[in-house]
Amino acid sequence: MTITPPAPESADIGVIGIGVMGANLARNLARHGHDVAIVDVDPAKCTELITEHGDEGTFIPAADHDQFVQSLRGPRVAIILVPAGDPTEMVIDAMAERMDSGDILVDGGNSFYLDTLARADRLAPTGINFIDTGVSGGAEGALTGPSLMPGGSTEVYERVGPMFESIAARVDGHPCCTHVGPTGSGHFVKMVHNGIEYADMQLISEAYDLLRNAVGLTVPEIRDVFDAWRSTELDSFLIDITTEVLGHTDADTGRPFVDVVHDVAGSKGTGAWSVQQALSLGVPVPAISAATTARALSGAEAQRHSVQALDLPAPVPVPMDDRESWTEAIRQALLASKICAYAQGFHEIATASHEQEWDIDLAELALIWRGGCIIRARFLDHIADALRDEPSLPMLLAAPWFTEHITSTLPQWRRVVALAANSGVATPAFATSLGYLDSLRAGRMPTALIQAQRDHFGSHTYRRTDREGVFHTRWEEDDRPEETWS
Amino acid sequence: MTITPPAPESADIGVIGIGVMGANLARNLARHGHDVAIVDVDPAKCTELITEHGDEGTFIPAADHDQFVQSLRGPRVAIILVPAGDPTEMVIDAMAERMDSGDILVDGGNSFYLDTLARADRLAPTGINFIDTGVSGGAEGALTGPSLMPGGSTEVYERVGPMFESIAARVDGHPCCTHVGPTGSGHFVKMVHNGIEYADMQLISEAYDLLRNAVGLTVPEIRDVFDAWRSTELDSFLIDITTEVLGHTDADTGRPFVDVVHDVAGSKGTGAWSVQQALSLGVPVPAISAATTARALSGAEAQRHSVQALDLPAPVPVPMDDRESWTEAIRQALLASKICAYAQGFHEIATASHEQEWDIDLAELALIWRGGCIIRARFLDHIADALRDEPSLPMLLAAPWFTEHITSTLPQWRRVVALAANSGVATPAFATSLGYLDSLRAGRMPTALIQAQRDHFGSHTYRRTDREGVFHTRWEEDDRPEETWS
Repeated sequence: MTITPPAPESADIGVIGIGVMGANLARNLARHGHDVAIVDVDPAKCTELITEHGDEGTFIPAADHDQFVQSLRGPRVAIILVPAGDPTEMVIDAMAERMDSGDILVDGGNSFYLDTLARADRLAPTGINFIDTGVSGGAEGALTGPSLMPGGSTEVYERVGPMFESIAARVDGHPCCTHVGPTGSGHFVKMVHNGIEYADMQLISEAYDLLRNAVGLTVPEIRDVFDAWRSTELDSFLIDITTEVLGHTDADTGRPFVDVVHDVAGSKGTGAWSVQQALSLGVPVPAISAATTARALSGAEAQRHSVQALDLPAPVPVPMDDRESWTEAIRQALLASKICAYAQGFHEIATASHEQEWDIDLAELALIWRGGCIIRARFLDHIADALRDEPSLPMLLAAPWFTEHITSTLPQWRRVVALAANSGVATPAFATSLGYLDSLRAGRMPTALIQAQRDHFGSHTYRRTDREGVFHTRWEEDDRPEETWS
Repeated sequence: MTITPPAPESADIGVIGIGVMGANLARNLARHGHDVAIVDVDPAKCTELITEHGDEGTFIPAADHDQFVQSLRGPRVAIILVPAGDPTEMVIDAMAERMDSGDILVDGGNSFYLDTLARADRLAPTGINFIDTGVSGGAEGALTGPSLMPGGSTEVYERVGPMFESIAARVDGHPCCTHVGPTGSGHFVKMVHNGIEYADMQLISEAYDLLRNAVGLTVPEIRDVFDAWRSTELDSFLIDITTEVLGHTDADTGRPFVDVVHDVAGSKGTGAWSVQQALSLGVPVPAISAATTARALSGAEAQRHSVQALDLPAPVPVPMDDRESWTEAIRQALLASKICAYAQGFHEIATASHEQEWDIDLAELALIWRGGCIIRARFLDHIADALRDEPSLPMLLAAPWFTEHITSTLPQWRRVVALAANSGVATPAFATSLGYLDSLRAGRMPTALIQAQRDHFGSHTYRRTDREGVFHTRWEEDDRPEETWS
């Protein structure tokens, strides 16, 4: 099948890049009655899509970028779904040459939000509206209903919003798509979504590790535990697929699938970005950081082998006289740590929104993450409720539902982190989440000692608890505090 | 006093920026017989220096950049000691206009190493050698002997090395200055030095917090504990000043000084950079990350207040029947965690050195950190020994001295992390260091489950434990693994 030039201005929207994500998003759009122009550097991708799924709606294939742009009705809307980095850059250049002022170019990939802001600036003189949208839910979500996080101006959202909302997942009739804020904010919140996703997956893997190596359950027993947790506050897509993965026997070896998978975890970079940006913003995100670190550690194979070869003392096993009680304790630790991880992610977004003046509606964000995306869960209803009740809530933990659950889980959470330390199971995200809570609740943090050390060796000055001002102690002279304004 | 134009080509070296650091480094150079040109945007800084310390050696003040450059003997050497960022940028531009091919311009500030590399590229066409040097030891170190970490070509080091080595701290006759590697490597290792410093300070503050709030010692008692630790493997400058800080009574209130200091810890950014770069390099640095996060958390005052206002259940105090045994356990946990923090920092430098082809001699780096800088300690002798014995050592923990100490401290380290969890004292760096060790020693990490989840929701593929290849399981179809090369 060869592509004949499409009729001009015949398509409602266009998709650039017909890989798995692009093909599925195009099909989703077509299924919802939108006439979709499609283009790919490999035109066979377009013809393939039409051969296999042409009956799902109206696809308008283009052989090249010129045909593609001409086929779009004005003001044109085109979504880029090619890999982040150079491929995205090249498509933007190609579109910038062909689109007109008032047209809308959407980057639907996982681009870094500062690149997005720079690209919007670069395109500003052309009058082309360059906007971003987070697309979560993987290939399946793109087809059946993703969670969409578009950034851009209100005017631009009026044009693209109805189309985006029509293809998004729906929860309680609410589309999982909202106008996040100006350009850049879409990619930012998608980045933090992924950071939260990393933390959630790490916490689940730590619970699994404890159940297996501290409590001593078998993989089928652990599968049943996760299955049971689906009817608790932990109910989520990630718990669903964990149950499925743990219930899966490898067809080739007959062993539990999880034991056949090599334990080096890959990553696409968005988790690391969300930690790097949190560091720049000065927001503590220890659970997201621990999750990203754990993946890096899994890949440090030379280092792991060198330590495994040592004859380090084995931990003394903790007696497991009551497996059920420990299993419930681990469930509570998982819930409490998960609450902290989400609190950190929302803190990061709130801080960026404030600094960038994005004015993001955090409650609405929680609502659109209830469906379509990887962290989808009813749990997010509680976050939305908390933020609806008090939009300027400084800290999720201070909202009633979360305070209640932290309060009820705290004793068992402590017990589980202690168990992990004693039994030699690494639980960096559980432990660091408990540390987060204990630091927040402490009336005084020992960082006072750090500040005193800094004044001693570097004259970095300090504030005092008993009066205003900035002080430096003359350590080498009379040890008296001296008010300073350095 | 007005500045008269200096004699041309009369100075061996020049210092730009006569703040505390610049003034002290200039004095150190003059005291060691080097004729030092000095210049500052505020000429009064130069005349002040000469009025107060002119008898220490030969200072050659300049009223402006023209006079300054003319006063230097060729090939000229000038060290910039102004704040990183715009001030540094402006000085570089001013010097680039005035210096000649073959001259050497040294950035002695805490610049970000990627900025340094970009500046070296920018100056390359001029023939001016732009190099970097880490300067550690604060104001006092700059005067009496800093630890210096210069980057640049071998030829450039031949010109500047002897002057730098003459003013550096000395330990066992060995100057605390070495040619680290090409331009950029100096600022990189200084950045990681600071990251390690953050971790070391955080670990000390956690030990203090445990001694005070879990074991129940008073500040004077804790001071005595730290004083006693000076005659153990922990002996270091940071333990020295901790002892001094804890022994210090605030002159105004009569209270322990540490209780008068506001507990929000500041930071200059290098700690966060070292974590951000580790994330980009894929190197796990959990202790450095925990330390940076703790400082950010201390500054999240609105969040802290909102959690402090909650009525969360107080931890049940752990009975402290044997304070001495717990104090020794905390010492051992501190030592073990410190070993992990340093292992992480050296892993980061080794990885960057490999990627950038810097060929850094890590043993030599350990040697020059034994004096002059903030993390100075005999402890670094053990690192130097380990790396001399096996230069390609993948992991510090695998060297005999470190294996021995991890082995002997591990049981008490576990006990202390469990104590912290049970008693509500946040010890993110202790806990995350133990998690680091336990992840490294585990034959299998639960990241296998994460990799399985990733294949399930995102077709991210996995490797197998039983054979080579890259696989994807057809979760929606027959659940069979399929070899793939995506």
